[in-house]
Amino acid sequence: MHHAETAPFDDQEETMSQLSDQPCEACQKDAPHATQAEIEKLGAEIPEWQIVERDGIMKLERSFTFRDFQQALDFTHRVGEIAEEAGHHPALLTEWGKVTVTWWSHEIKGLHKNDFILAARTDEVAT
Amino acid sequence: MHHAETAPFDDQEETMSQLSDQPCEACQKDAPHATQAEIEKLGAEIPEWQIVERDGIMKLERSFTFRDFQQALDFTHRVGEIAEEAGHHPALLTEWGKVTVTWWSHEIKGLHKNDFILAARTDEVAT
Repeated sequence: MHHAETAPFDDQEETMSQLSDQPCEACQKDAPHATQAEIEKLGAEIPEWQIVERDGIMKLERSFTFRDFQQALDFTHRVGEIAEEAGHHPALLTEWGKVTVTWWSHEIKGLHKNDFILAARTDEVAT
Repeated sequence: MHHAETAPFDDQEETMSQLSDQPCEACQKDAPHATQAEIEKLGAEIPEWQIVERDGIMKLERSFTFRDFQQALDFTHRVGEIAEEAGHHPALLTEWGKVTVTWWSHEIKGLHKNDFILAARTDEVAT
């Protein structure tokens, strides 16, 4: 899905926009985990995110820095809005000048394509 | 400071109110850590909080549960407001239906009386 008419992006941003524009599918307990090939392909579109493993669960994580607490909290609020909109929710650690966002799919205890889509949307509301 | 005229409290809540009403002092690097006697006395006024040690730093921590993500995020916002007002900032981990609040004094890498005051104020905005 392209929005070139209304919002010109450079190449990199257009790639990210394509991922962030994809719909978030309803995620059931029997939904498939992202495959290793998908993780590599989708991960390349959100290069600032780390794949971390916590308690045996693979998660996407990125820290964003801000100039003070209020800016950090405002970002937390914006990520909360995209989470509510998608019906998919991250962990958000808000500190002075910093927010750490962690996405994973609770239902499947791991990474689903939705997590990559929401990570791309998170990048979009970071600035 | 009593507010009995405008907001009747039972005994326990009045005690907590007294702590939460105290002013937050400016905290410098040479400010004194809370003594063990102070930690016990002030800690008794915020019984739901745990004293935890992370990376050698003593901190106050409490998790609050909510019925969904939005309620949790609204609480995070309220704690952010009291933090900005006091010029003293916690770590706030917002998840679906849960917020974990951690107070400590970065300047002294430990607990100051301010942290107990802010913990008491956090309790007040939890409901």
